[in-house]
Amino acid sequence: MKITLCQLNYIVGNIEGNALKIIEHIQQAKSEKSDLIVFSELAICGYPPYDLLFNSSFVQQSIGAIKEIANHCVGIAAVVGGVDFNYGDGKSLYNAAYVLNNGKIQHVYRKALLPTYDVFDEARYFEPSYEPLIFTHKGKRIAITICEDLWLPQIDIHPAPGKPKYQYDLISSNNALTPDFVINIAASPFSVFQHSYRYELLNKVFEQFNCPLVYVNQIGSNTDLIFDGGSVVYNKKGEKYFLPFFQESHSTIDLDTISAKGDVFQQTASLYEALILGIQDYFIKNNFKKAVLGLSGGIDSAVVAVLAAHALGNENVHCLLMPSRFSSQHSIDDAVELCKRNNLSYHIIPIEQPFRSFEQSLSSVFEGKENDVTEENIQARVRAIYLMAYSNKFGNILLNTSNKSEMAVGYGTLYGDMCGAISVLGDVYKTQVYQLAHFLNTQNELIPIHIIQKPPSAELRPNQKDSDSLPEYDLLDNLLYHIIEMQLTIPDLINMGFSEDVVKKVYRLVQNNEYKRYQAPPVLRVSSKAFGYGRRIPLVKKF
Amino acid sequence: MKITLCQLNYIVGNIEGNALKIIEHIQQAKSEKSDLIVFSELAICGYPPYDLLFNSSFVQQSIGAIKEIANHCVGIAAVVGGVDFNYGDGKSLYNAAYVLNNGKIQHVYRKALLPTYDVFDEARYFEPSYEPLIFTHKGKRIAITICEDLWLPQIDIHPAPGKPKYQYDLISSNNALTPDFVINIAASPFSVFQHSYRYELLNKVFEQFNCPLVYVNQIGSNTDLIFDGGSVVYNKKGEKYFLPFFQESHSTIDLDTISAKGDVFQQTASLYEALILGIQDYFIKNNFKKAVLGLSGGIDSAVVAVLAAHALGNENVHCLLMPSRFSSQHSIDDAVELCKRNNLSYHIIPIEQPFRSFEQSLSSVFEGKENDVTEENIQARVRAIYLMAYSNKFGNILLNTSNKSEMAVGYGTLYGDMCGAISVLGDVYKTQVYQLAHFLNTQNELIPIHIIQKPPSAELRPNQKDSDSLPEYDLLDNLLYHIIEMQLTIPDLINMGFSEDVVKKVYRLVQNNEYKRYQAPPVLRVSSKAFGYGRRIPLVKKF
Repeated sequence: MKITLCQLNYIVGNIEGNALKIIEHIQQAKSEKSDLIVFSELAICGYPPYDLLFNSSFVQQSIGAIKEIANHCVGIAAVVGGVDFNYGDGKSLYNAAYVLNNGKIQHVYRKALLPTYDVFDEARYFEPSYEPLIFTHKGKRIAITICEDLWLPQIDIHPAPGKPKYQYDLISSNNALTPDFVINIAASPFSVFQHSYRYELLNKVFEQFNCPLVYVNQIGSNTDLIFDGGSVVYNKKGEKYFLPFFQESHSTIDLDTISAKGDVFQQTASLYEALILGIQDYFIKNNFKKAVLGLSGGIDSAVVAVLAAHALGNENVHCLLMPSRFSSQHSIDDAVELCKRNNLSYHIIPIEQPFRSFEQSLSSVFEGKENDVTEENIQARVRAIYLMAYSNKFGNILLNTSNKSEMAVGYGTLYGDMCGAISVLGDVYKTQVYQLAHFLNTQNELIPIHIIQKPPSAELRPNQKDSDSLPEYDLLDNLLYHIIEMQLTIPDLINMGFSEDVVKKVYRLVQNNEYKRYQAPPVLRVSSKAFGYGRRIPLVKKF
Repeated sequence: MKITLCQLNYIVGNIEGNALKIIEHIQQAKSEKSDLIVFSELAICGYPPYDLLFNSSFVQQSIGAIKEIANHCVGIAAVVGGVDFNYGDGKSLYNAAYVLNNGKIQHVYRKALLPTYDVFDEARYFEPSYEPLIFTHKGKRIAITICEDLWLPQIDIHPAPGKPKYQYDLISSNNALTPDFVINIAASPFSVFQHSYRYELLNKVFEQFNCPLVYVNQIGSNTDLIFDGGSVVYNKKGEKYFLPFFQESHSTIDLDTISAKGDVFQQTASLYEALILGIQDYFIKNNFKKAVLGLSGGIDSAVVAVLAAHALGNENVHCLLMPSRFSSQHSIDDAVELCKRNNLSYHIIPIEQPFRSFEQSLSSVFEGKENDVTEENIQARVRAIYLMAYSNKFGNILLNTSNKSEMAVGYGTLYGDMCGAISVLGDVYKTQVYQLAHFLNTQNELIPIHIIQKPPSAELRPNQKDSDSLPEYDLLDNLLYHIIEMQLTIPDLINMGFSEDVVKKVYRLVQNNEYKRYQAPPVLRVSSKAFGYGRRIPLVKKF
């Protein structure tokens, strides 16, 4: 049987556009004499649609589009993800996989396991259904499953915190019905580890089914969630034929004769690709073209600048260098050098004049008070005014350059360096930022080595260094990883060997800075636990 | 039977403190010879705990505290809301009501209906259980229910969008077991209409049970969610004995002899009380004392100033008046007059100097470009720098003064007037702000009448008025209510009689400004659909 895997990039809510795209690929697959074409989960509306699902026009249009697509399914069958009405008790919708054939909807499979943890809110919208679907096409018995349906606790060795022990086992239900092969349509977001977890899990799924498996994931980034694709066919021997990661792909294969085609996975490279896709799609899907960012001469903004240049084209990235009285000459020189090496346009706008006017006009109000974090924050906020003014005047979108380590401990100024439309590195720890910098320098020294080698500093007061008030980043990031991703408790962390003082200090910093992150830009998610929708901590609390 | 209703204000996560408070009230009830004391839903950890529930220390401490409280339940029984482990399939926790008696946990009821819509995410944390609990105490058969358990679709005539048609009917299950009376422990947040919906619903619940009903809700505000209390006893005749709204209450009543005690509900008064509680608890629970806000001379900041003075004491509210070259003299005069009438301290800090220094330093960068929204935003952001500088230097917490109408249409400057720790009016439409202003002026003209009567203006360019670019607020707010709270679609709205042009323009403004609201402060929720956790719209979308 010839099967076409369609790993496509959908725009959330763009039902008409997504449907047209799906129809084009059906036409192409017909010309390739394909028997069956498979699209990803909720392809018709893009994943995640969130509360657009409460809009009745949205749902009606989604279902109407499925019927329109069905008209094109003559001589070929298609599996398309969409929503379906539930007229019975429970939530009013199902997360469905439509089997289209002979110009009509032939079958509807409805998702059983609805992820409701981390970034997933599926129980908010959908009712589960516990009826397996096996349909026959061209003499083959084909089982349909949707994403989480396969992530059974007994085979998922890295369950996300909050993930339930699902009682329903669709794999066994399907096995009892002896399928010839199994399809899974997915919307499985990227994270640095998810990547390997996913294929570990699918290997086990294959073992349990012991028949070919066709897995189709979406690609593309939707605000904060990045989908890497990585669709794969397991042939009957369990050999894996991978579609490419981080790009659209239309692949027509013969399930009987297909052999292995590997994926090349390297952690930092995939992190790089994920961030590039995240930046690109934020701009493309919003019809934005140009970016602006503040270049401090430090490593975070340098890495964001180079990523942005790769994602958007260097001609579309503008940098503002905004030295203060505390900026070292090397910071300015390093930032200028970075712009030159990467062909980025820039302006140098010293912040002294507005900073001084704030100091002067506040001098009577602040009389008798020492300088403190107030004056540091004024500098960061003056820079934000310049960046947003540039953005407003020229339409360049401001990229935020905060990293995950500093967002975690609140080492950043709200309405200052925490500004931006999208946070590029907000889910990338400082130690990973260094890895990215080295990765970006593999071929050419795009980031002047001095930027990488000098000790990190916010340069908001004389001779300031990050290490004055924070543990070294190797230690800090390791601890933060165990607090945020692994969700360990203070006793757990002390038992692991972290010093009690450091644990308590860092834990308190993380807890006390929820209020800053609440107002932070959306963060491109590249870990199993990013700041944002997937992490919901009360702001007012005692714990 | 003597029953004590405990309508208390808990701090989320303050397990030790909440437990101590519960124990104190148990002691008091014992001294009153009460037979049974009832606390609200998740009393032990406060509602909503959100992802603190994924922290194993948090759960263990919560369960440990219940055992500690049980030690005090000798000679009195208690019903206390808390979490319980689920060792079976599904989510690892239950939302439980513990029946404590004779020094131990005697029964555990586990919530059946888990709200997972709007601000509620209970399916993220809890497994439902469909076993009714009726226990016998002092010869009475007592049924236990938790909040949503009673909100059955067949009797809820105002279901929230996204609310499912629950298939399980605990009322019938309990009725079959013939209870003598029914207890409901709740964490039911305030909204202007929720207030009447709640008692409409409880009236119907009473009809169905046809036996006394004891309803205990929490009070207090947790970040954005305000709980109004309003606990009530329905005696066997269905007469209602209300506990007070918006304050803690410990009421020991005799279920056999209790007669009616009414509540006095007035919509604007309750809105006022809700906002006062929202401000107070944000400060008290965070150990903050003083507030700062920017006074423009307009109605929004005037109302926030007076509310803050009432909530925190006028000595704890400081105002900054920051006139620009576009500010009218009457704006400054009105703002000064407001401060005088309400005994608020203030500084006048003209923004001309820093504004001009931004203009000058950007003149070469912006050469050949016309003035536009950029310069308006710079003014708003300069003011934000002053406000945050004052906040940083003196520890006063910045109150945001944006109203719901302007947040809805994006009529505000991100990192400018959208700054603040908490948004006081972000769920209050402009027309409601006027109602609040008149309400505040009932006894004395706290808000100079000129502030209420003049046409609204942002004063960011010469002779600017809100009505230059927006429909009149009566029309706008009515339309926004139907878009946001009622979640109607464009065709629905046109069918209602709104003009197509206005509908399309306003709908697009609402959709296109999600990105601003994403970075807005938490908003005190006083409607059935506030901006924030309860409304999850993708930022990148086409719909």
